[in-house]
Amino acid sequence: MPPMKVVYTPRHLVHDVTYETYLGVQVPANEVAERAERIRAALEADGGSELVEPTEHGEAPILAVHDAGLVRFVGEAWAAARRENLGRTALIADTYPVRAMFEGMSEAAIARLREPRAVGGRTGWWGLDSSNPLVPGTAEAARWAVDVALTTADLVLAGEAAAYGLCRPPGHHAGRSMAGGYCFFNNAAIAAEDITTRTGERVAILDVDIHHGNGTQQIFWRRGDVLYASIHADPADLYPFFVGYADETGEGEGEGATFNQPLPAGTGDAAYLDAVDRALDRIAGTSGSIVVVSLGFDTFAQDPIGTFAVTTAAYHEIGRRVAALGRRLVILQEGGYHRPSLGENARAWLRGAEGRPHDPIPAGGFGPDGARMPA
Amino acid sequence: MPPMKVVYTPRHLVHDVTYETYLGVQVPANEVAERAERIRAALEADGGSELVEPTEHGEAPILAVHDAGLVRFVGEAWAAARRENLGRTALIADTYPVRAMFEGMSEAAIARLREPRAVGGRTGWWGLDSSNPLVPGTAEAARWAVDVALTTADLVLAGEAAAYGLCRPPGHHAGRSMAGGYCFFNNAAIAAEDITTRTGERVAILDVDIHHGNGTQQIFWRRGDVLYASIHADPADLYPFFVGYADETGEGEGEGATFNQPLPAGTGDAAYLDAVDRALDRIAGTSGSIVVVSLGFDTFAQDPIGTFAVTTAAYHEIGRRVAALGRRLVILQEGGYHRPSLGENARAWLRGAEGRPHDPIPAGGFGPDGARMPA
Repeated sequence: MPPMKVVYTPRHLVHDVTYETYLGVQVPANEVAERAERIRAALEADGGSELVEPTEHGEAPILAVHDAGLVRFVGEAWAAARRENLGRTALIADTYPVRAMFEGMSEAAIARLREPRAVGGRTGWWGLDSSNPLVPGTAEAARWAVDVALTTADLVLAGEAAAYGLCRPPGHHAGRSMAGGYCFFNNAAIAAEDITTRTGERVAILDVDIHHGNGTQQIFWRRGDVLYASIHADPADLYPFFVGYADETGEGEGEGATFNQPLPAGTGDAAYLDAVDRALDRIAGTSGSIVVVSLGFDTFAQDPIGTFAVTTAAYHEIGRRVAALGRRLVILQEGGYHRPSLGENARAWLRGAEGRPHDPIPAGGFGPDGARMPA
Repeated sequence: MPPMKVVYTPRHLVHDVTYETYLGVQVPANEVAERAERIRAALEADGGSELVEPTEHGEAPILAVHDAGLVRFVGEAWAAARRENLGRTALIADTYPVRAMFEGMSEAAIARLREPRAVGGRTGWWGLDSSNPLVPGTAEAARWAVDVALTTADLVLAGEAAAYGLCRPPGHHAGRSMAGGYCFFNNAAIAAEDITTRTGERVAILDVDIHHGNGTQQIFWRRGDVLYASIHADPADLYPFFVGYADETGEGEGEGATFNQPLPAGTGDAAYLDAVDRALDRIAGTSGSIVVVSLGFDTFAQDPIGTFAVTTAAYHEIGRRVAALGRRLVILQEGGYHRPSLGENARAWLRGAEGRPHDPIPAGGFGPDGARMPA
C-alpha cells in the first residue's frame, strides 16, 4: 500500500488549552495543539502522505450519536461563560451529577431532572472530570475533529484501503450525554455510526489508547451492529476508573459486542501484542469490511500519564497486524502525550499498516517543524 | 428558656483545610476551622451557654445512614494517598461516576461496578465535587462532628428543650454513598435516624442552609418517618445544581415527605421568613416532638458564596419562629462562610430560639477570641 491519505486541518489550533486540573490542582495541559502538529509534521517529512482537508458534514451525524443538549452546550458554553463574567481562560466543572446523588429515585423522577442555568453547573451536568478544559475555540475545533473523522470515513468508503484522520480534540471518552477526558464529541463513534448507516454492514472499533473508551462503550453498549474491542490499563488503577472491566460485555442486542481487555501497569510489547491478537481474532469473527481504529500512543513507555511500556517497534507491528486482518481501516487519532515521540510513533504505526518497513528515525526524532533532529 | 447547651470539641481543628477547587482553579478554602471558632467564641462571650464535650458513639449510627464503603474510604483515604506518594496537602477528586457514563446499563450491570484501587479514583467514586478537600485530620474531625450531633440529640432526648451542636465539617451534602460540598458524614441525617429509632416518633429536618441538602434528601427520599423541609437557592443557579426543585417530593413511603422551597438569588428577609412559615406549617402537620435544624448562615447578605440577603435580625426571628413551633430542637451547624458575622448570627439565631432579645452586638462584632470589637 502506498502512504495513506492523512486528513488534517489546522483548525484544531483554536482549541488552545494551557492547563487541566488533576486531583484538584492546575497542571500544564497534556492534550495540546503541539501533539497534532508533531504528528502532521512527521508524516509530511516522511514523504508520500497526501494531506487532505476535511469537508463539512453538518450536525446530523453528531446528533446521531450525541444528545442534542450536549451538542448545544458545547456550542454555546464559552459565550455563556462570558455572559456570567467567569473571567477565566478555560471552563472546567467542579460539581457532577454522580449516580449516588440520585440513589433511590425512580426512572420517572430521574427523567424530571434538568440541566442547570448557571454555566458552571451546566459544565458539570455534561461532564465527568476536570481534565477537560473548554476554551474559546473548543466548539469550532470539536466540530472539525468530527469532520476529520467523517472525511476519513468518506475516503475509505470511496475505496481507499486505509486512511488516517488526525482528530483533535480526541473523542473516545465522550458518551451520548457526556464530555470528558479531553473529549467533546466521539469522533470514532460518529464515524462508526456513519459507516454502518451508509453500508448496512457491521463495524468494529479497535481502541488501542491506554485509557478505556468509556464513551464509545456507553454509546454502543446495547448495539449489536458495532463491536467495541478495547485494550487498556486496568480501570481500577487508571482513568476513567469506573468502567472497562473484562466482565462488561454489552447488554441486550449488544450482548457480546463489547470486548474489554484491561491490562496491568507495566505491560510491555509481548503482552500487548497478545492482546491485539485476541482483539483481532474477535473482530475477524464478525462480519463487516471496515475497522475504525481509535489510535492512542499513550501506551508508550515514556508517556507522562500512561503506565504501559510499549515501544515504537511494537507500534509498527500493531499496524502491520491490524492491516493483515484484510479489512479497510479508518484510523482516528485519540491520545498520546509524550510529544517528542508522537511523530515517530504515528509514522511507525501507519507504515506498519501500509506494509512499509519501520525505517527508524535517528535518535533525536522529529522536531516540531518535522525536520529530523540530530542524535 | 435559659441559654441552651452548646456541644463543641476542638477536635474539628485537625480538619485543617487551606484550599478548595472552584471551576478547576484552586481558591482559598471557605470551610475553615475559624468558622467554628468564631461561633464558639461568640457564644462563650455572650455568657450563659454551657459548652458540652461530645461523647463517642461509635460507628453504628453512621452505618445506619451511610454505605460501609464510604465510611471505610473516609477512614483510610489519607493513608492511602500517602502510600501512593501523591505528595499533596489535600486529596480532591477529578473524575466522577456520573449517571451519563452508565446510561443504558441494566441495574444488574451497574451492581457489578466496583470501587477503584487508585486513591484518586476512589475519591471520585465516593465524591461529587472538587470543593471537598480531604486532609490528614478529616477522618478524625468527621467522626467527631457526628458525635457532636449525636450528643446534641442525647441532650434533647434527656429533656433539654433545645441544644446546639457546633458540627464541623458540616454534613447535609453527604448522601448514603457520597461525600461532597465540605461534607463527609451527614450529621443531621445521622441524628434524625438516631432519634426516630430511639423514640419511634417521626422526625422533621428543617434545612435553612442556602444550599439544598442533597445528601439529606437522598438519604430519606423513600422514608415516610423523616420529613425533609429545605429552603435554599434555586439549584438551577447554585450548588448542588442537580436536585432541590419543588417538584421533588419523595417517592414510595416517602411521597410527600420531601418539601423543597427553592428561592431566587437576592431573596431577602420577608420572602425568606414566608418560606420559613410554610416549612413550619408543613412540619406542624406531621406528628413528632423533635425537629432537627440544619442551620446555615450562608443565606447572609455578605456571604462570599451565597446569593441571598438575609439579615442578622431575621436570624433572630427565624430562631423565634422555629421555637414557637413548640417542639424540641436539635440544632446542628451546617454552612456559613462570612467569618466576621458568624458569631453574631449564631448568637442571634439561638437567642431567638431561647426567647431572649436580640441585643445586637456593636458594629465591629466579635473578634476571633470572642471579644467584642470596637465599632
